[in-house]
Amino acid sequence: MTTILHGNILHAPAFGQLETVPSGYLILEDGVIEGVCEALPARYEGCPVTDYGESLVMPSFADLHLHAPQYPMLGMGMDLPLLDWLDTYTFRTEARFEDLDYARRVYRALARDLITSGTTRVAMFSSRHTDATLVLMEELENAGVTGYVGKVNMDRNAGLSQETTEESLSETLRWLDACARFRLVRPILTPRFTPACTDDLMAALGKLASDRDLPVQSHLSENTGEIAWVRELHPDCGRYWQSYGKYGLWKDRTLMAHCVHSDPREQEAMAASGVWAVHCAASNVNLCSGTAPVRELLNRGVHVALGSDIAGGDQLAMNKVVVMSIRASKVKQMETGAPFLTVPEAYYLGSTAGQRYFNGGAGFQPGHKLHAMVVDESAFPEPTRPLALPERFERAIYLMEKRDIRAVYSEGVKRV
Amino acid sequence: MTTILHGNILHAPAFGQLETVPSGYLILEDGVIEGVCEALPARYEGCPVTDYGESLVMPSFADLHLHAPQYPMLGMGMDLPLLDWLDTYTFRTEARFEDLDYARRVYRALARDLITSGTTRVAMFSSRHTDATLVLMEELENAGVTGYVGKVNMDRNAGLSQETTEESLSETLRWLDACARFRLVRPILTPRFTPACTDDLMAALGKLASDRDLPVQSHLSENTGEIAWVRELHPDCGRYWQSYGKYGLWKDRTLMAHCVHSDPREQEAMAASGVWAVHCAASNVNLCSGTAPVRELLNRGVHVALGSDIAGGDQLAMNKVVVMSIRASKVKQMETGAPFLTVPEAYYLGSTAGQRYFNGGAGFQPGHKLHAMVVDESAFPEPTRPLALPERFERAIYLMEKRDIRAVYSEGVKRV
Repeated sequence: MTTILHGNILHAPAFGQLETVPSGYLILEDGVIEGVCEALPARYEGCPVTDYGESLVMPSFADLHLHAPQYPMLGMGMDLPLLDWLDTYTFRTEARFEDLDYARRVYRALARDLITSGTTRVAMFSSRHTDATLVLMEELENAGVTGYVGKVNMDRNAGLSQETTEESLSETLRWLDACARFRLVRPILTPRFTPACTDDLMAALGKLASDRDLPVQSHLSENTGEIAWVRELHPDCGRYWQSYGKYGLWKDRTLMAHCVHSDPREQEAMAASGVWAVHCAASNVNLCSGTAPVRELLNRGVHVALGSDIAGGDQLAMNKVVVMSIRASKVKQMETGAPFLTVPEAYYLGSTAGQRYFNGGAGFQPGHKLHAMVVDESAFPEPTRPLALPERFERAIYLMEKRDIRAVYSEGVKRV
Repeated sequence: MTTILHGNILHAPAFGQLETVPSGYLILEDGVIEGVCEALPARYEGCPVTDYGESLVMPSFADLHLHAPQYPMLGMGMDLPLLDWLDTYTFRTEARFEDLDYARRVYRALARDLITSGTTRVAMFSSRHTDATLVLMEELENAGVTGYVGKVNMDRNAGLSQETTEESLSETLRWLDACARFRLVRPILTPRFTPACTDDLMAALGKLASDRDLPVQSHLSENTGEIAWVRELHPDCGRYWQSYGKYGLWKDRTLMAHCVHSDPREQEAMAASGVWAVHCAASNVNLCSGTAPVRELLNRGVHVALGSDIAGGDQLAMNKVVVMSIRASKVKQMETGAPFLTVPEAYYLGSTAGQRYFNGGAGFQPGHKLHAMVVDESAFPEPTRPLALPERFERAIYLMEKRDIRAVYSEGVKRV
């Protein structure tokens, strides 16, 4: 089936590159992109066209690090030091997901909030609860949010949310078996972070990752206290990453959130192994963790994507996360001189980079299922003159809110 | 006439102090606050009560630095260096306000955007255009936005927007005469900043400020290039502030936006003269100006309020500006160790501090006309447990959008 969308088309196929097709056509066959063109080829005459008029049609967002069970605490506890924040809010909030009715309500609202904000791909932490994790996956799939979800593993230093090593492993196996039924949302192994996982658990998860060829996500070098703690726990590891490396968890497509304090050698280890850094700018400033060396990571060939990191982050909407990444990079520039992220660069990290993590295309690259959003600018202030598309793109990234998102396509299907 | 509001009442009467009255009553006589109480005194029995139920009733915001004619360029040009940004966007955009029909449309939309976002007090820069400035004041007054507006004076280094010294002065007099008809919005003298005003103009404005007892607003020590420029223009001034001081523009209640690079001696000069610093956190990071020493200013006894500084800032909603001030203070803490602004502290700067600038009260202090907003939390994520009011307050500051603002009172009158 042929579908044709008409509108002002723009995408970021490569880092720093913004391509625009004013009043263009996006042609789909069964939800798969055939191409983008300025005028409709003769062979499509007579095909129905969904006309988005003056609206912007652009790739939707990918959020590669967020904690679903922290959604209920969004925007709270931001004045607390990290450990108090974990005890007062995080562990208590996550513990509530024992209750499946509660989980259903919260995760349905979260899935809806994501898709209507233009986020169609995620790599997400659940809680330790197997059944709530399955509820989360079901709600995401129903809403059209695709990607990875992980039941969290944590058998030490995890307060109320802790599990035993045996439970952690047997529940992980039960969860993986139950995941067979999902099509759009797949499992990812999720050791919370080194201090919350015993060596036995890490070793068993590393074996599982290898035996079943499963991807892995965790946290890395978020703050200096954590790094010192990992050094105490693993005196044999000169750098934090090696505590994952020695158990087979440091491998191609492993997602590591934060990397705020990753030094050149840790960055080189990421590039060499194909490990991805997920930059969480809002969370890193909210929790006073620091400002991640994003430009340095990119220059060393590390893949970088963006994460909202709710609820360390306070904003779920990824355009706000893109803007926060730009702001963080400006702070970094003032500190080190490293050039800040331009709007097209930061948008690439929040859209195409995440698509490519999931083997999607570069922007609206043909041969890939469509992930897109349609932005209506009519609620923005009236400009003094007709704006060029790159200016409209920039304004949309800075100003867009949910009310401005007119349609969202995920995996080739219109979901909003 | 007695009006009674019922709801969860909270305010920040002093810096760092948050007072909450769960399910309380706010009593007004002709729009003037009589008091806040936990139970309704017997003498008010029978008076009609506006019941806001579970909603939060809190003082509205004051935005003490923004450029009205830059509203059309909100969220654009953020990747440009300051001078290109001024040439490509700012001066050209401001020049458009020669056209009064255009000014009317833009300023009506801006006034509406302000009041529905909970901003009821402003100190605002217009453009150099007298008639468009009067349109702006009219639109603000009609919408219920109170405070100060200034016709901008700039007779050098102002590109397309420049005026001659004679024009600048004669138009200022014409404008001041025409302002007699406004009640809620009053004039403030507005030399754009030292590099844009000749010595003759500065001297004449200083005399006018003194003769007519008019307040003054301008920019101070925003970035290092500007400071060097002022030093060239005024080699007799050891510090930037003295270029205002020597013409009588540095006086009690003068508003100085930015103060990013104000050193201890400049800060002391502010405290000594009763000059206010207006902190514009979003703009300062967007334009890579730096991070203002807010804690240091406060410790030295300088009055500090907040400004959105659109369109160097990209967010008009003052709760977002409060959050940006917190983030900037966390960046500053990581850099210098100065404690970050807590949510109640930053909210004080965005509400009570601005009220007091306009001789309003401390929070909901009796004897002052009501400036308040009512926030409905029903669109926020469902929490895991009943939240305490201070937690709800914090969450509202972080998450609230226009859709959540159920009512706004300005100068004792319900406007939204």
